[in-house]
Amino acid sequence: MDVRAILFDVFGTVVDWRGSLIEELQAWGAERALTVDWPGLVDAWRGAYAPSMDRVRHGELPWTNLDALHRASLAELAPRYGLVDQSPQDMEWVNLGWHRLRPWPDSVPGLVRLRPHYILSPLSNANVALLVDMARLRGLPWDLVLCAEVFQHYKPDPESYLGACRLLALEPSQVMLCAAHNADLAAAQRVGLRTGFIKRVTEYGPHQVRDFGPEGEWDVVADDLEKFAAKMAA
Amino acid sequence: MDVRAILFDVFGTVVDWRGSLIEELQAWGAERALTVDWPGLVDAWRGAYAPSMDRVRHGELPWTNLDALHRASLAELAPRYGLVDQSPQDMEWVNLGWHRLRPWPDSVPGLVRLRPHYILSPLSNANVALLVDMARLRGLPWDLVLCAEVFQHYKPDPESYLGACRLLALEPSQVMLCAAHNADLAAAQRVGLRTGFIKRVTEYGPHQVRDFGPEGEWDVVADDLEKFAAKMAA
Repeated sequence: MDVRAILFDVFGTVVDWRGSLIEELQAWGAERALTVDWPGLVDAWRGAYAPSMDRVRHGELPWTNLDALHRASLAELAPRYGLVDQSPQDMEWVNLGWHRLRPWPDSVPGLVRLRPHYILSPLSNANVALLVDMARLRGLPWDLVLCAEVFQHYKPDPESYLGACRLLALEPSQVMLCAAHNADLAAAQRVGLRTGFIKRVTEYGPHQVRDFGPEGEWDVVADDLEKFAAKMAA
Repeated sequence: MDVRAILFDVFGTVVDWRGSLIEELQAWGAERALTVDWPGLVDAWRGAYAPSMDRVRHGELPWTNLDALHRASLAELAPRYGLVDQSPQDMEWVNLGWHRLRPWPDSVPGLVRLRPHYILSPLSNANVALLVDMARLRGLPWDLVLCAEVFQHYKPDPESYLGACRLLALEPSQVMLCAAHNADLAAAQRVGLRTGFIKRVTEYGPHQVRDFGPEGEWDVVADDLEKFAAKMAA
């Protein structure tokens, strides 16, 4: 392998979106004495993620970034789980919880170890502002921030993977996607990228139904990002 | 002012392109006993920069990134200054000299001081790979890498400045362009950005004919990036 750059899926692979959101929202709700089913809301919110992006991918919606998709699905779901009567500012603070997600404990040490050896970037379906806020708050050492919003194509559209290679001026074989999701890796591999699978078996908590292990011929498989860094000879 | 992000022009503002290229190429040519007019070549190469981008801006050429524009103008100019009979690999190494430009001595200290307080990004006419290589080699602490290639519009097209604001999810008034060139700042100001002027009176060496001082109502004026950081209360 002659890998020069590693692109990272972010939600689930680098950060624990479910644990972060539930913990933060439970604390926030407790301060306000709200009676909200927070795990139910967070799981339903995440459940709306792929269908909302698919509406963009299939042309039913014009390009819409993830903050806006999240905002719309939150507005629809919040009352069903008991989150009502909040100010627009508070609802926006809730929506921006995705900007504040906490990395898994191995993520920052793994990325720091990789960075002298490889160009590091997210390749996420999140939007630029979300990823920049998260990186600054959480110390994610990206060299640049690539994501669906830059290419106006959500993964797994090939334009997202190939757009990243084009901007990096690298051949797809010089670029690796690192992700906890087999479907994302399969799409990257189909257009020539190298692949690294990270096992994140608690990403969806008790509702996890897939991605317990590698389901393709991935170039590297590791239990976490520190072990991945070690395997990449970093 | 409620500035949240500062965008930097790079060539001339952050890095000393003329001094860097002449120094590196003179050393490289001496090792090979070449007799090339290096200052002449570098000045002519930079002279081709704006006209080549204007061909793209005016639709005479389809989108072409700066590495490719530089490559084409180098191929045309090199023989006139005595750079002949080099391998394609060596000519590419020369072309990639723009990826290795040296910052002015105050640039990295100034950026490091600003970074805790502001989102920092280039907004350069260079391409992504050039800016990423330079940042990694020279320690430029960008949060992300924005440039003409991302928007397929060279500055001073308004799409470049406004595209950066859109991806950052900020109003133009929350974004400042910092540049050593009055024309760049004027274009940014016309679409609502804040402006910071840095005096770089030796950028063009003996051939400098403009930008000895501020020629507009810029929000901040400073002699270098450390002084700029101090004025930005960083």
